[in-house]
Amino acid sequence: MDIRPQNNPMHWKQRAYRIIFESDTPAGQAFDTVLLVAIVLSVLTVMLESVAHIAAQHGQFLRAVEWVFTGLFLVEYIIRLVVVRRPLAYALSLLGIIDLLAVLPTLASLAMIGSHYLVVIRTLRLLRVFRIFKLGRFVGEGEFIVDALKASRFKILVFLTAVLTIVIVIGTFMYVVEGGKNGFTSIPQSIYWAIVTLTTVGYGDISPVTVLGRTMASILMILGYAIIAVPTGIVSAQMARPTTDAPTFKQATCHICQANGHRDDAEFCWNCGEKL
Amino acid sequence: MDIRPQNNPMHWKQRAYRIIFESDTPAGQAFDTVLLVAIVLSVLTVMLESVAHIAAQHGQFLRAVEWVFTGLFLVEYIIRLVVVRRPLAYALSLLGIIDLLAVLPTLASLAMIGSHYLVVIRTLRLLRVFRIFKLGRFVGEGEFIVDALKASRFKILVFLTAVLTIVIVIGTFMYVVEGGKNGFTSIPQSIYWAIVTLTTVGYGDISPVTVLGRTMASILMILGYAIIAVPTGIVSAQMARPTTDAPTFKQATCHICQANGHRDDAEFCWNCGEKL
Amino acid sequence: MDIRPQNNPMHWKQRAYRIIFESDTPAGQAFDTVLLVAIVLSVLTVMLESVAHIAAQHGQFLRAVEWVFTGLFLVEYIIRLVVVRRPLAYALSLLGIIDLLAVLPTLASLAMIGSHYLVVIRTLRLLRVFRIFKLGRFVGEGEFIVDALKASRFKILVFLTAVLTIVIVIGTFMYVVEGGKNGFTSIPQSIYWAIVTLTTVGYGDISPVTVLGRTMASILMILGYAIIAVPTGIVSAQMARPTTDAPTFKQATCHICQANGHRDDAEFCWNCGEKL
Amino acid sequence: MDIRPQNNPMHWKQRAYRIIFESDTPAGQAFDTVLLVAIVLSVLTVMLESVAHIAAQHGQFLRAVEWVFTGLFLVEYIIRLVVVRRPLAYALSLLGIIDLLAVLPTLASLAMIGSHYLVVIRTLRLLRVFRIFKLGRFVGEGEFIVDALKASRFKILVFLTAVLTIVIVIGTFMYVVEGGKNGFTSIPQSIYWAIVTLTTVGYGDISPVTVLGRTMASILMILGYAIIAVPTGIVSAQMARPTTDAPTFKQATCHICQANGHRDDAEFCWNCGEKL
Repeated sequence: MDIRPQNNPMHWKQRAYRIIFESDTPAGQAFDTVLLVAIVLSVLTVMLESVAHIAAQHGQFLRAVEWVFTGLFLVEYIIRLVVVRRPLAYALSLLGIIDLLAVLPTLASLAMIGSHYLVVIRTLRLLRVFRIFKLGRFVGEGEFIVDALKASRFKILVFLTAVLTIVIVIGTFMYVVEGGKNGFTSIPQSIYWAIVTLTTVGYGDISPVTVLGRTMASILMILGYAIIAVPTGIVSAQMARPTTDAPTFKQATCHICQANGHRDDAEFCWNCGEKL
Repeated sequence: MDIRPQNNPMHWKQRAYRIIFESDTPAGQAFDTVLLVAIVLSVLTVMLESVAHIAAQHGQFLRAVEWVFTGLFLVEYIIRLVVVRRPLAYALSLLGIIDLLAVLPTLASLAMIGSHYLVVIRTLRLLRVFRIFKLGRFVGEGEFIVDALKASRFKILVFLTAVLTIVIVIGTFMYVVEGGKNGFTSIPQSIYWAIVTLTTVGYGDISPVTVLGRTMASILMILGYAIIAVPTGIVSAQMARPTTDAPTFKQATCHICQANGHRDDAEFCWNCGEKL
Repeated sequence: MDIRPQNNPMHWKQRAYRIIFESDTPAGQAFDTVLLVAIVLSVLTVMLESVAHIAAQHGQFLRAVEWVFTGLFLVEYIIRLVVVRRPLAYALSLLGIIDLLAVLPTLASLAMIGSHYLVVIRTLRLLRVFRIFKLGRFVGEGEFIVDALKASRFKILVFLTAVLTIVIVIGTFMYVVEGGKNGFTSIPQSIYWAIVTLTTVGYGDISPVTVLGRTMASILMILGYAIIAVPTGIVSAQMARPTTDAPTFKQATCHICQANGHRDDAEFCWNCGEKL
Repeated sequence: MDIRPQNNPMHWKQRAYRIIFESDTPAGQAFDTVLLVAIVLSVLTVMLESVAHIAAQHGQFLRAVEWVFTGLFLVEYIIRLVVVRRPLAYALSLLGIIDLLAVLPTLASLAMIGSHYLVVIRTLRLLRVFRIFKLGRFVGEGEFIVDALKASRFKILVFLTAVLTIVIVIGTFMYVVEGGKNGFTSIPQSIYWAIVTLTTVGYGDISPVTVLGRTMASILMILGYAIIAVPTGIVSAQMARPTTDAPTFKQATCHICQANGHRDDAEFCWNCGEKL
């Protein structure tokens, strides 16, 4: 796991880097565990704050806790910027942007009331800490799913286009058929109903009443029931395809772009090309 | 891509044909892009017009915009008829009929109020302009899906027949069981409910109340939950089947029937047999 | 297609048999077509009769039509009994029972009001007339589906047992959790709700209100969403399995038990063992 | 099936063991059948007791029946403890715990009203009596399903994490978008709605009203409709994988840990290692 030459004595930045960005040392794993708990607690805090009767009783306490967490995450973000070799590359990487978004809403809430709820975007930070459980395994399985979806992306796009065309055309017909009544008050509304129906969600807030409307709704439902087979078939067929010698992954993180999931035999980051 | 002999100087009809029907020249691609935007905008116009409070404020403007788009599409349709080699073959082809249907409803609305909403059938015209994004790829993937569905069509028909038989028989039993009450006011109504339930849509506008009715509904739900596996299995199995050397596709469009998706090595239109 | 020795002149019973039970002669196909239309019309009659405002206007006419159809089907049933070689074997075969059930409810309605609606069980007779469209093909595909389901029957039974156990246990917990309120008035009711939820039907006639109830409902929903993958996977895997040289089917019907779908090379009925 | 040396005359404990724990003797099968019926009847008793109008009429009788069954199951549990070779190992095994849980709630109901409904956990005891129908077959198929799920567990975990992240983020956005109205009264509530929608259950007790809310709901629905393909694909692909020579199973039960499903050629319990 010797990701970089061991200059003895190690510079404090390098030590901090290993603790914060890597998880191959006890200190690094401890840091990740604390971070994981902090993220979950901070998201729970924001959730509880939104419940009226809890906010009435413990509002001030929860708000204080949220500011403490935000302060900690801000400090963590600044340290990350300091210890990483190329701060700009980190700041503009996906994980870097998520780290920033995790603190911005609370700060923004000083100016704009309500925006601080968006802080739950912190949940995405959990992606980072997956590292602490057998990373390679998870990343490998995640990549398998993402690869299958990527390989099917054109098929899925064609499928979604077909779905959109169906709901637009049927939604409009329903608007004409139901005569703007029974909740079908406009074409966008009717399209919303068509989506609710085709996807088999079926809220029931809008439902057809006329005979012709119910007949068309029945056709749409059976259609929706049957065409779910298409994306499922696409992904199943893709996943069933024999994969050529699946590579294993190492725990190292690129120290420039923070990408994970490098093959065990990788020498360069698959994302930014930096030497690992 | 030399679809026809390059007679220099090219006749204006031929130049117009290449721009309007093909997308292998910069002018052709620009035309398709403009058409794509026009279709989307015109469909949006009609949608907005159906929203009461928007119509109250901007109704006249939207109506005018719709007539402008209809005029443009009408002119485009006429030009297509003029420049194509066999106008009748084009007019009777699927794409030709869609092009006509895209202008008819607005014209018909002069005589029949409300019919102009059907103009959203224009959405289907988007199928034509898919050409401008990597056509071959999309058409190829689309064909893959369509082929899988075609190969499974007998199985799907058998499946749909089984579904129809189930909803008719169970719908009628429910009508008898619930005694014409609780929304089960007639057999067609009860069949509608059975479809809503079997497809797992579940609006809740009609739901059983008696013990026997709920027991039968439970059986129907578990049945619906389980038999969704059948079409999915059919399509998955079909798609997983190894395809013999998948052909690639060229961007050319048949100048007679406007069919797309010709194999790279095709010399004749797969649809009408015309020499490409 | 020489199913039996051609004794010239053919006995009228044999001619009637070929027309009514087989579909390999023009007369036989014509008979099947008429039968198909009669079944569909008679089912539609019963359906319309159940709609209050139609019954008010045309009730007597529809009732008369239903009696005419019932009379015709009764006559047909008797003729079938007469011309078939072993009447008892026919009467006790699945198709024979369906033929009888198609006339019984109307007759029974003389004694028991309302029972005549059950006459829609006639719909099942359509299974018989599938013969007239390329029978072999349909039967073949139908057998493919049935075979896949049969091969998976133990797996599906295990799956259904798991589903039943889940809904019983979770339904009871919900009854305790929601405290018999909010529609969870008894354990059977709560189990009904659990089925409605697990199958993703979701009527909304009963839905949890307490925090703990909603949490358990969320778990049940995600469970239901995920385990639909199990029957689908079972059937997909079964159908994707390479089938050894799929046999083709002949149009002949066993003249004893009326079974269809005999392999082209079959010499004996697969159902009753009678020589074909 | 000589599971242990036949010491003649057999000790009564060994005979009792064979009857209660095994099902390879007529007496053992009879015992299992009686147990199966008793479990089903006792669960039905508790269910009926929860229905208000039945409890009003037959409450005392049902309560008495439940106590009788509980007494029988308690006696059975004690006998099992006595005749098994290592009582502690049995008591701590999964099946042993279920056996205990089947009697505890009724006893606990003396102290805590309402708890006795939890007795339906007895349903899980049915798992034990599956033995009486061709055990090996069922266990084999059950294992097939469990194995496929186990092999896919990392993929399914990644999928569930993605689902949870989606519902948390979208739920919060909806809370902000709908402004705490229309049922979206808090973030946990909104997340509950997001789960109801993504899983296509769609109760309709909470549904968006604003235009932006409905747009986001539409995206969530189509997302939920499409990503159901992922777990299905995972499990299908796993199940379609060719299994190496599937073993057959014998009916013997480990006399220590009560595990079932031993391979025909097994000499030791796959669960506790005890010699079979």
